Amino acid sequence: MRAEIISIGTELLLGQVVNSNAAFISRELAALGIEVYHHVTVGDNADRLTEAVQAAEKRADLIVLSGGLGPTEDDITKQTIAKYLNVDLLLHEETEDRIITYHKNSDFEMPENNQLQALILAESIPLKNDTGLAVGMILEREDHQYVLLPGPPDELHPMVENHLKDELIKRLLDEQVLVSRVLRFFGITEAQLAKKIEPIVKAQTNPTVAVYANEGEITVRITARAKTEEEGNRCIDEIESLILEPLTDYFFGYGEKRLAEAVRDLLIEQGLTITAAESLTGGAFLSSITADVSAGSVFEGGIVTYSTEKKQKVLNISAETIENFGVVSPECAIEMAENSRKMFKADIGVGLTGVAGPGSLEDQIPGTVYIGLSYKEDPPFAKRFHFGYKRNKNRQLAVLNAHDMVRRLILGKPVKND
Amino acid sequence: MRAEIISIGTELLLGQVVNSNAAFISRELAALGIEVYHHVTVGDNADRLTEAVQAAEKRADLIVLSGGLGPTEDDITKQTIAKYLNVDLLLHEETEDRIITYHKNSDFEMPENNQLQALILAESIPLKNDTGLAVGMILEREDHQYVLLPGPPDELHPMVENHLKDELIKRLLDEQVLVSRVLRFFGITEAQLAKKIEPIVKAQTNPTVAVYANEGEITVRITARAKTEEEGNRCIDEIESLILEPLTDYFFGYGEKRLAEAVRDLLIEQGLTITAAESLTGGAFLSSITADVSAGSVFEGGIVTYSTEKKQKVLNISAETIENFGVVSPECAIEMAENSRKMFKADIGVGLTGVAGPGSLEDQIPGTVYIGLSYKEDPPFAKRFHFGYKRNKNRQLAVLNAHDMVRRLILGKPVKND
Repeated sequence: MRAEIISIGTELLLGQVVNSNAAFISRELAALGIEVYHHVTVGDNADRLTEAVQAAEKRADLIVLSGGLGPTEDDITKQTIAKYLNVDLLLHEETEDRIITYHKNSDFEMPENNQLQALILAESIPLKNDTGLAVGMILEREDHQYVLLPGPPDELHPMVENHLKDELIKRLLDEQVLVSRVLRFFGITEAQLAKKIEPIVKAQTNPTVAVYANEGEITVRITARAKTEEEGNRCIDEIESLILEPLTDYFFGYGEKRLAEAVRDLLIEQGLTITAAESLTGGAFLSSITADVSAGSVFEGGIVTYSTEKKQKVLNISAETIENFGVVSPECAIEMAENSRKMFKADIGVGLTGVAGPGSLEDQIPGTVYIGLSYKEDPPFAKRFHFGYKRNKNRQLAVLNAHDMVRRLILGKPVKND
Repeated sequence: MRAEIISIGTELLLGQVVNSNAAFISRELAALGIEVYHHVTVGDNADRLTEAVQAAEKRADLIVLSGGLGPTEDDITKQTIAKYLNVDLLLHEETEDRIITYHKNSDFEMPENNQLQALILAESIPLKNDTGLAVGMILEREDHQYVLLPGPPDELHPMVENHLKDELIKRLLDEQVLVSRVLRFFGITEAQLAKKIEPIVKAQTNPTVAVYANEGEITVRITARAKTEEEGNRCIDEIESLILEPLTDYFFGYGEKRLAEAVRDLLIEQGLTITAAESLTGGAFLSSITADVSAGSVFEGGIVTYSTEKKQKVLNISAETIENFGVVSPECAIEMAENSRKMFKADIGVGLTGVAGPGSLEDQIPGTVYIGLSYKEDPPFAKRFHFGYKRNKNRQLAVLNAHDMVRRLILGKPVKND
């Protein structure tokens, strides 16, 4: 079973919107053992959309289109597919009712063009839109399946997860399955990691091993073709142990899990609470802890002291520390960690201070960051980092490395500078 | 002049990495008046990459490839293009030296495969990689230009901005220019906005007007074809005033500017300082203020009080408020705003409290959010919001609406609930 994803929207070709839908749909299809060999993006143009569908029919059995189901002038996907496949557009009454009810309950009066979102292709099966108004659909024609999804990710995601998946499983899956497992690493470069497992990667045809980096975290995806899920998982288990052997220190979890989530799970597991005082990261570390609802059991609060004055007046960083060492110093990072712990009564306190850039601070170059850790009765300490010259990259790397330091602390792995 | 963007990487087809490069390159090309009609993504597969290039040659003059220049097994772009165009791969000595020097200065020893990153196509012009090792290149062949760029965005962006742009301007621009202007709006839905300007959009062929929503903010892009930049801007000016007339209340700025940046610029302009106490957003609002280096002049710090206990003990929210109204209440949001102002001595204090979800809190449904504002001598107040059921969407909308409330407060526009 092979699929092709066609994204529709001039805003994508103008670069005003990043195409995250193609990635999301690909992940969901891969999980079903459906291979994707091409992503194609075209604008709100009927001719080019039709050409893209014709090309896709030669290469794929399942054609997933996203975007262009909305109420505006340039939403042309349904009309174009209806014309190309020569099927009528019918009113889907359940959707029409939802649109009317929605506007009854909202303060806005309803623009008539909103009704366009209730039209579906004749003979297609509607896909409910749990979080928006435009209905999706799946249509079978000879040996092809055509899926139409809305463009907004917060409408597309639930439609795929709650409705499309079941439809696909019903009609599409062949006996061969594609089983894959994703391992997540931090604290090593992509090239270094690739080098360490090169012999294993080279030796493999099934399972295959792929390495890629994303936002500072590294992903290793092991994918096996097999007759059954069990068989697939068995060969993945073997390769996984070979891969982890030289990399165990950098491994933090499986699947989509981000480093921050892995650390939160560790804190919950160990019954530890955490807080932080942030300067260059300005709240990004605290925010990353609270992204998940489970944060409540490990986190009560934290503080952002961006200016030197507030570091002293609100967080009680001593004047001596600032005079003698400056705010960009291990001493200040340690005191921020300790004082945040006192202020919020947590087991672990993190202090983040440094030069986000682009300019220098206290004669220190951009990318110079000190992260302090204070943990129960342990002697507090700080670790020095030198990142790059990009402000927000530096802020992001500071947040990730703070999480990694906490992870290593909890697991008793080495964490200080050599 | 027409371009096509081909992204290479199996990780993109597996959905492990979102393709932000195609959007970035498209924006840069649009700014040069170069039209992009297709984005295509293929895996690390020589045959499919070759087919994609052949298809692109029929549709575009400029073919931009990104990805597959790295040192690992599956980086095949240069080798594939060399074979397809029948040109040799030569060692680019300047890049080789950089690779060697880089590893001398780093703690890692150099894997030999890193040398692969110094190979370039014969007759091509190398594009320097300011932030990484893999060299890029541009090659002219008959009536096509082939551009090869690295996959990592933090390498691709500076290569495009600092090196590719100049090369393209030198050789590609025709006399016709494409001038475009982007207007940014918040506080109205895409459908509502589209409806308001429908007659204007319908009436236009040049300039064209496109509307799209992204992360809660709405973008209207006006694009004009003209003989000169001046001529293009003149007709854009006319349409802009027609569009702004019914939408002035929601308009916050031009171009790539995000709402948070527009608010920060307003604060700087008015010489005002800001702080916040965050509960459900956990630091995301404070972090959004500090994303830009100019934050220092309007922001000194803020606090995150996630638990009820810390709201009382650290931020001094009165027990009465919490007993009588609960933490998810306008009274609590107002007290958080006021107390954060006292704590950090700012002109404006923002309090964010609510139910991020997915669960309920104090019998209030997820998406119920109260944002409090305290400004100088004005009576403090809170605004009530009901967002959806998605935790992080609710957090994001709370941050955006807090910025919008501050913007309206500063500009003297209506901001409270009716």
